[in-house]
Amino acid sequence: MRNHDDTICAIATAPGTGAIAVLRLSGPQAWPIAESVFQPASGKPLPARRANRLHFGRLVRGQETLDEVVVGWFRGPRSYTGQDVVEISCHGSPYLQQKALELLLDRGARLARPGEFTQRAFLNGKMDLSQAEAVADLIASTGEAARRLAMDQMRGGFSRKINELRQRMLAFTSLVELELDFSEEDVEFADRAQLDLLLGGIASLLRGLVESFSHGNAVKNGIPVAIVGQPNVGKSTLLNRLLDDDKAIVSEIAGTTRDLIEDTAILAGRSFRFIDTAGIRETTDLVEAIGIQRTHKTIEKAKIVLLVVDARDSLRHIGKTVQRFKKANDMAHKHLVVVANKADMLSSLERDLVFRHNIPSFDPKDHLLALSAREDADLLALRALLVELSNLHGQGQNEVVVTNARHYEALTRAEKAIARAQEAIAARTPTDLLAQDIREALHFLGEITGEITNDQILANIFANFCIGK
Amino acid sequence: MRNHDDTICAIATAPGTGAIAVLRLSGPQAWPIAESVFQPASGKPLPARRANRLHFGRLVRGQETLDEVVVGWFRGPRSYTGQDVVEISCHGSPYLQQKALELLLDRGARLARPGEFTQRAFLNGKMDLSQAEAVADLIASTGEAARRLAMDQMRGGFSRKINELRQRMLAFTSLVELELDFSEEDVEFADRAQLDLLLGGIASLLRGLVESFSHGNAVKNGIPVAIVGQPNVGKSTLLNRLLDDDKAIVSEIAGTTRDLIEDTAILAGRSFRFIDTAGIRETTDLVEAIGIQRTHKTIEKAKIVLLVVDARDSLRHIGKTVQRFKKANDMAHKHLVVVANKADMLSSLERDLVFRHNIPSFDPKDHLLALSAREDADLLALRALLVELSNLHGQGQNEVVVTNARHYEALTRAEKAIARAQEAIAARTPTDLLAQDIREALHFLGEITGEITNDQILANIFANFCIGK
Repeated sequence: MRNHDDTICAIATAPGTGAIAVLRLSGPQAWPIAESVFQPASGKPLPARRANRLHFGRLVRGQETLDEVVVGWFRGPRSYTGQDVVEISCHGSPYLQQKALELLLDRGARLARPGEFTQRAFLNGKMDLSQAEAVADLIASTGEAARRLAMDQMRGGFSRKINELRQRMLAFTSLVELELDFSEEDVEFADRAQLDLLLGGIASLLRGLVESFSHGNAVKNGIPVAIVGQPNVGKSTLLNRLLDDDKAIVSEIAGTTRDLIEDTAILAGRSFRFIDTAGIRETTDLVEAIGIQRTHKTIEKAKIVLLVVDARDSLRHIGKTVQRFKKANDMAHKHLVVVANKADMLSSLERDLVFRHNIPSFDPKDHLLALSAREDADLLALRALLVELSNLHGQGQNEVVVTNARHYEALTRAEKAIARAQEAIAARTPTDLLAQDIREALHFLGEITGEITNDQILANIFANFCIGK
Repeated sequence: MRNHDDTICAIATAPGTGAIAVLRLSGPQAWPIAESVFQPASGKPLPARRANRLHFGRLVRGQETLDEVVVGWFRGPRSYTGQDVVEISCHGSPYLQQKALELLLDRGARLARPGEFTQRAFLNGKMDLSQAEAVADLIASTGEAARRLAMDQMRGGFSRKINELRQRMLAFTSLVELELDFSEEDVEFADRAQLDLLLGGIASLLRGLVESFSHGNAVKNGIPVAIVGQPNVGKSTLLNRLLDDDKAIVSEIAGTTRDLIEDTAILAGRSFRFIDTAGIRETTDLVEAIGIQRTHKTIEKAKIVLLVVDARDSLRHIGKTVQRFKKANDMAHKHLVVVANKADMLSSLERDLVFRHNIPSFDPKDHLLALSAREDADLLALRALLVELSNLHGQGQNEVVVTNARHYEALTRAEKAIARAQEAIAARTPTDLLAQDIREALHFLGEITGEITNDQILANIFANFCIGK
């Protein structure tokens, strides 16, 4: 465990020029260091009990005034880190920020490592590890759904769920451990049938959490939407319209898009990650062949696939394309939306035919939209469908959702340990082996909230933070 | 004058992702608006007397928690703007910042215009106009000298000087105005000799301030250093070494640098604006000819000119180049540094000769350095010389220095009005004309601190601020 008896400081606001910037100090010397560089405008000495108060005055280096600042004082443990904390608001010139930081370093503070303030909060019991991780997620959130999940997790929703599971297991563990003390006597304090029932319940809760990850991950990183289709059906135009910019090269030459083009758009507060792909036809062009290989991988990862076809083709041809596509790709956990593009070139009769799903052997579970990527109204319909599909796909708003790959891994491991324990009960395995599986499951759950941790885990987690948090 | 009875809000920290971001509210509804979106973690109602206090809690939109925040309360007139002010520290995600800002706008705040917080501070008498301008200068400062000048001005050093001048003039003005009341009687309450003496004193103080502008402006925007010399003597290499990057295209083809290249470097806390120029030889190339025309303008504006010559040329040739250059350009208020570049290609004997200033008719007031732009040690020597020259050029640290073009203009006008008043006294012009000149001088001095102002002046000044300040 890293030493946190020293006093750390950092610029806590975004880099660059602003009206104001905030520097943050945390540690036993935070107040004395701030005192040594601050002269209150009142001219009166600072009151001893100044926690949660603001003072206006001068930031000084000896006789020289560096800036006029507002200083806020927090007394540990009633602070973000649980230590004494000072926040100094100075004018937002990058030069001044740098000078103010240097001044604090000169007075004995140390530059904070990324996430070190939050790490101290964790080490001082102000939050558990999954809450600390949510702080970083919150800062990184770019859409409403991601913000909400991070906020729930930061406020302890996820931790409560995990702790509930742990508490239920701990009760039985103590009984199982007791059996080990009396192992020579072959007694069973823990009712195996009841234990099995409990493990079954826990296993199903774990399953739900593990499964929520694919949704949670999608919300956090954007719901992956693959845009596929034969060359020149208008995939890039569609992508551009969805993204409202000109990232993909749109051209009339078949096979123009060689590389995967990926970008994120926010629709109804949800983030969608759109991936345009090279055409899915057979090709002899090497570069395009690589692109096509990537297409298949992209489709695998996608939650929603937009298969773009040319609405001017015969319905039979479109039907065949869809069938061929579904044969080549596993659509089990995905939504397929067939987008019959260039429908503006059709007569309204033809367009109706397409709409009426008159395509041969079209699966009613799949979706179809005949549209023109150039028409705003058509785009609105497509966006609405995407939002609807992302809702069907996801959980309700109040359920706990796993968004963190580390949690996902720990949960998966806990699930496996529980499965082994269930097998052990079924096979009437000796108590010591059963106890070990349960201990292991507890261990992995404990890793999530940080009851069980080590320097490596902490280092990995906090390295992803920004400095100043 | 713009209405400032409404409540304004803005994000006050730099744009982008940080650990925290600060939103600021100012106006009569600042406290009620903040109350309506804030729930203290204590669960207790907020105390009525909470000025200069910090509260931790939740930023809420109805039932939903948007973020966990710290809120600081300031009660006008003891606040930055002189109005009630609230500062909300939220997590630094750009998405969250936007959401929090939208929430405040929904609750009835209006998005602040650039500089509107500082403008309110001015309108409420928290600072005068030159202090308000210094806030923007402080935020824009990129070096120690500029920071110090802005800080002095913000803390009122400059304003005091101006007010002193105004007070001294006002005393006499009242006497002169009194004469106007008795104009039929032809009395002189104001002793003309004493008035002339006073005006002379004021004129010389004004002169000092007006002259300080060229220094103040240089400190604020960088001391302009022109790099001139014939093609292929290594001007671009020298510039790159001074700037430590590869902005200018360095090549062995004579006349490569067609355009002016300009960049700023900070040496010993002072900002230098280096300007590379096209060669100064005669040319038939049109593009280069334009470049050469610009060269002359650049030299006019420069405070220091680095005339780069090839150290391998004969001393006679170098001497001629220097003479020709000094004949073509007015060096009256500038420092000339002859840089004999490529001195690494010389034998040490030759180098010594160059160092010994053996160049024919070399002016001992000018400086000469034989160096190689590729040698770190040589570059250090050049940098040290530049810092020294910038010191010789400037004022002492404690003198009041004009950095603002608007102030410069007002001071110049005041100076002219004083000169006219002095002439009026000498010519024994009627009192009413004399009074008018003095009133005019007072007017221009008043413009600086904002005692006399109008909407247009204010709009111009605050338009240069960032939003949130």
